[in-house]
Amino acid sequence: MNDINRLVFTSDYTEGAHPAILEKLIETNMLKSAGYGLDEFSDSARKKIRTACDAPEADVFFLAGGTQANAVVIASLLRPYQGVIAADSGHISVHEAGAIEFGGHKVLTLPHKDGKITAAGIAEFAEEYERDENHDHMVMPGMVYISQPTEFGTLYSLEELKEISETCRRNRLFLYLDGARLAYALACPENDAKLPDLASLCDVFYIGGTKCGTLFGEAVVIPRHDTIPHLFTMIKQHGALLAKGRVVGIQFDTLFTDELYLKIGSPAITEAERIRKALIVKGYRLAFPSPTNQIFILLDKSRAEELSEKVELGFWENADEDHVIMRIATSWATQSADVDRLMEIL
Amino acid sequence: MNDINRLVFTSDYTEGAHPAILEKLIETNMLKSAGYGLDEFSDSARKKIRTACDAPEADVFFLAGGTQANAVVIASLLRPYQGVIAADSGHISVHEAGAIEFGGHKVLTLPHKDGKITAAGIAEFAEEYERDENHDHMVMPGMVYISQPTEFGTLYSLEELKEISETCRRNRLFLYLDGARLAYALACPENDAKLPDLASLCDVFYIGGTKCGTLFGEAVVIPRHDTIPHLFTMIKQHGALLAKGRVVGIQFDTLFTDELYLKIGSPAITEAERIRKALIVKGYRLAFPSPTNQIFILLDKSRAEELSEKVELGFWENADEDHVIMRIATSWATQSADVDRLMEIL
Amino acid sequence: MNDINRLVFTSDYTEGAHPAILEKLIETNMLKSAGYGLDEFSDSARKKIRTACDAPEADVFFLAGGTQANAVVIASLLRPYQGVIAADSGHISVHEAGAIEFGGHKVLTLPHKDGKITAAGIAEFAEEYERDENHDHMVMPGMVYISQPTEFGTLYSLEELKEISETCRRNRLFLYLDGARLAYALACPENDAKLPDLASLCDVFYIGGTKCGTLFGEAVVIPRHDTIPHLFTMIKQHGALLAKGRVVGIQFDTLFTDELYLKIGSPAITEAERIRKALIVKGYRLAFPSPTNQIFILLDKSRAEELSEKVELGFWENADEDHVIMRIATSWATQSADVDRLMEIL
Amino acid sequence: MNDINRLVFTSDYTEGAHPAILEKLIETNMLKSAGYGLDEFSDSARKKIRTACDAPEADVFFLAGGTQANAVVIASLLRPYQGVIAADSGHISVHEAGAIEFGGHKVLTLPHKDGKITAAGIAEFAEEYERDENHDHMVMPGMVYISQPTEFGTLYSLEELKEISETCRRNRLFLYLDGARLAYALACPENDAKLPDLASLCDVFYIGGTKCGTLFGEAVVIPRHDTIPHLFTMIKQHGALLAKGRVVGIQFDTLFTDELYLKIGSPAITEAERIRKALIVKGYRLAFPSPTNQIFILLDKSRAEELSEKVELGFWENADEDHVIMRIATSWATQSADVDRLMEIL
Repeated sequence: MNDINRLVFTSDYTEGAHPAILEKLIETNMLKSAGYGLDEFSDSARKKIRTACDAPEADVFFLAGGTQANAVVIASLLRPYQGVIAADSGHISVHEAGAIEFGGHKVLTLPHKDGKITAAGIAEFAEEYERDENHDHMVMPGMVYISQPTEFGTLYSLEELKEISETCRRNRLFLYLDGARLAYALACPENDAKLPDLASLCDVFYIGGTKCGTLFGEAVVIPRHDTIPHLFTMIKQHGALLAKGRVVGIQFDTLFTDELYLKIGSPAITEAERIRKALIVKGYRLAFPSPTNQIFILLDKSRAEELSEKVELGFWENADEDHVIMRIATSWATQSADVDRLMEIL
Repeated sequence: MNDINRLVFTSDYTEGAHPAILEKLIETNMLKSAGYGLDEFSDSARKKIRTACDAPEADVFFLAGGTQANAVVIASLLRPYQGVIAADSGHISVHEAGAIEFGGHKVLTLPHKDGKITAAGIAEFAEEYERDENHDHMVMPGMVYISQPTEFGTLYSLEELKEISETCRRNRLFLYLDGARLAYALACPENDAKLPDLASLCDVFYIGGTKCGTLFGEAVVIPRHDTIPHLFTMIKQHGALLAKGRVVGIQFDTLFTDELYLKIGSPAITEAERIRKALIVKGYRLAFPSPTNQIFILLDKSRAEELSEKVELGFWENADEDHVIMRIATSWATQSADVDRLMEIL
Repeated sequence: MNDINRLVFTSDYTEGAHPAILEKLIETNMLKSAGYGLDEFSDSARKKIRTACDAPEADVFFLAGGTQANAVVIASLLRPYQGVIAADSGHISVHEAGAIEFGGHKVLTLPHKDGKITAAGIAEFAEEYERDENHDHMVMPGMVYISQPTEFGTLYSLEELKEISETCRRNRLFLYLDGARLAYALACPENDAKLPDLASLCDVFYIGGTKCGTLFGEAVVIPRHDTIPHLFTMIKQHGALLAKGRVVGIQFDTLFTDELYLKIGSPAITEAERIRKALIVKGYRLAFPSPTNQIFILLDKSRAEELSEKVELGFWENADEDHVIMRIATSWATQSADVDRLMEIL
Repeated sequence: MNDINRLVFTSDYTEGAHPAILEKLIETNMLKSAGYGLDEFSDSARKKIRTACDAPEADVFFLAGGTQANAVVIASLLRPYQGVIAADSGHISVHEAGAIEFGGHKVLTLPHKDGKITAAGIAEFAEEYERDENHDHMVMPGMVYISQPTEFGTLYSLEELKEISETCRRNRLFLYLDGARLAYALACPENDAKLPDLASLCDVFYIGGTKCGTLFGEAVVIPRHDTIPHLFTMIKQHGALLAKGRVVGIQFDTLFTDELYLKIGSPAITEAERIRKALIVKGYRLAFPSPTNQIFILLDKSRAEELSEKVELGFWENADEDHVIMRIATSWATQSADVDRLMEIL
């Protein structure tokens, strides 16, 4: 793996942290602070995030990872008789090993289009639930989960998010946005949904760290204070409260200093765009129209194996008996020289 | 908090990481590796831990924190009809916000003596369960949870651990040891239970990192391979699988290089011993006979307030209306000069 | 067991149903009605219960059994970060196989006195929780569970219940009363807490059927409408919604016709009183000062075995190596002639 | 509802119990017996069921209802990392208010054809899971749930069940069959899967009582003894253990005396067949090709309303904006005269 000559484009979490983060960790290392996120570094990060989101009353909690954030938020927001609406391709629907069900809740899936669901689809589901004479025997939809960018690298437009948000409010559904790769949305020229938009449209969202330059850690933002009373205790109950909470606090403090978070995804987008163009020119078939840092290509299995000898790609899924979907992911850490080499190989 | 002149003895997680760990994180930062603990750093750490524990077949998993380790291990080991025996002062009994119950299991408490339970107490509980004609209506004890050092800083002797282990096996109870502060046991002259002893006596134990010099992270050790099938998936299900698993792997790889883990607690023990002697000389009342890095003193509330103006101590609990138990904790990072100043104040 | 000459005093659920109930089931058998408790028999029973409780707005739900009622009510009332305070001898603490923990909640036990807890004990617990600086790491008490009569056959006086209720409201704790054997309290001359008192003092309570003359079934009463929104769906989710809900409805409709429920326990109390007096005269040691239909006697094991050859008693628990506590239970179905025979044997 | 002239075909649980059951309840009413299913009536019923199923080693448990049986069996059979495969139209997928997820498990849905899933569909799902390189991040299929008859009244043939069973064993999946309406399958001329077939092909199945002539109650059959260790305790934990277990035992003892269970569904099948023929003659559109006691018709909403003035039908679901699917259900209690009247109305 550490073969320095090996090309690796498997994911956006193959390296450690952005240098600025490491520096800050070194600089603060021997300072003493309170535990459990009650430290001044976490406080500072919270303030900067509130400012960046234009959400002065927001509650902000720092958790270790994305599945954890999803599990804690969903279990804490929903009442026992409720479930969460999500795309059938959503991370919580497929790749979280049943974390939402472990917390006692059903994932109510809608068919996706390029990883996205629509306001119309949500409204139809909620209205059909209301109309069903047997709905007291069914799981009530209580919230909506979307990812930005989606698991396929696609983006919701601001307009789409507004419609979804309005639909949620009309149907008394909380709206929760999973921003595991949010930096890559924010750095994407196509994107028109900014942090303050998310804060105004969502009930909860998280700003991804792990895939966006931290060693680990995500920032859960709850724009309206006390939307989830006693969340601190529920975080503890989920085993998600970090004793040295400052370790995530320091990282997010750095990411939200000098707008680093808004810029950190740029190289990933630039390099992904170069790769995408090369792929198209060379006749590769892209599985999804993704403008962000993930590119999915549909390959013959034999071609996939051939490629894999020269460059490490991410396995995504078997498309059929003969074809496979492989993922090329760039990140804040991607080197242009590596992309050059990749393009040669392709 | 960062007032450089302020004395802080509240806990053993007030600083960042041991310098050797930070260095290793810096050195490896831009190397690429696989996610989810499948990287070479985690592999290396696992090998070193197996060697240190004399447990060549052990499964080793890296988690983010102690409550998380407890919640994952207990929920994964127990069958639904079983509960876990623990001291009523145990971390899982009191300070984990119901994490074990969230996972569906009852904590079956035994009265503690200085934070410890006994083989005899466990045997009596298990045998009474068997004898009770109504036991099919009751939670079956399925495992035993102990902490080393305990929450009060006391230690189980090797002899006591052997008796407990034997009792557990005779009664078909898994034995699980919470080693959140294990480095402080291992560095303590009084301690005679070494890592290979724990591996031979326990079904599962964890080697604490967060309180023993890492930024965060604990190493769960399962001496007999596949004692918990599919634990990887259950870790994911609990939201406890780190995408950049290497970040904990690297830290434990460092802790288990050149026996650092066996030595890292020494300064804490030395300084705690100095403080303890001073306290005794000055007539303070110690609440528990702890030989490790935590010292609990029983104080008048007024005296506690007075002290707190000069040095930050940890609140432990209200003893009665007029008295409070405060904790002085040393750590790998404690400075002798700070202890000098503390002793003057006392 | 059906040996017609065998004396049986093991419990108050050894027979079928009160004859009036069977008659009503026969009479209504071929009438058609809606399912899930939406039938006119259940409606009628609900109305009568509301009247008997002087609680015109009460929600009333019919469930199959007591553990089920406890599990559903507690899981539905509590938020995830909360637990339920109960006597350590309470049914939910000991004999429900972890049903409350299966629902994700901790039982916070208080020491009992003859099966009872006190307003002072509850207040102290709640206040200590508030005072504890670490309480955000602990399970918050969210409700109080008591049984009337208790598991040991003892009774709370109206005065005691008022104090408990007031303490609960002051500390924002729901008060839930388990009335599995409520008919035996209501029929007891010592009892001064009537149904309207319970409705005014409790947030939820259940009127026991299974042990008080029905084939099965309990009536959960929630005096203030919509205290638990969507409880119907949560009942379904717990597998506790009966398709032929009318079968319990009809039984409670009968029990609440002509005040049958207030009278059905009388023979049990009369016969228990005769047995109790005989026991005292003959020098038996009673384990608890119970005025209701359960009598607990402390016996040498050898004496217990001897007795068991002539009469079937209920095993309660091992008191120590040589002694056992056995239960004599009378019920609505107890025959005076059988009590005569029992008294001879004693 | 009890309007004696009103025609009701909404469901198969609109009446009480088969007369033979009521008689037996009356006859045994004042006999004393042990609680919790440990009585001689339940023992007798268990023996008769074992004989009828040709499964001499079978464990048999009596529960109160179908959702309860499903919730208990599935939560008890699965390990935490596993889920249950079911038709997307299955009762556990739609109409159990999230009972399976409340128990911590995901329902892994397959598309249905007339309410059925196929061996091929199951195999494909299981094999794709195995092939997926990310499957350790996903819920592992651990069992298969099917209903016989299905929720749409259709039947699996013996051949289909054999294929499904073989597929399950090859893929290490438990096979669980929900027999809520099993009597109507067994009474159906088209059916070729007998009770001994189910016992030989399934790991667990339940014989429905509530919809097949009892007041309430289902018999869970586990052909191989101790497939689910400590199930008694888990039943208690789910609040599903009846104190007067004999009440269900007596009912099943009656149903399995003189092969009543094999005959009880016959009138329902005969009458359903008459209705079905009349519907076809009159040009109604049947939504599913059901040969059992449930008939689903697709109606204009206006026509549905018109019909509903004269006969009570069951609402099934909205087919589209203008059409609705209504259910006509016959049962053991259906009167030919009522069917005559229904046919006139149609």
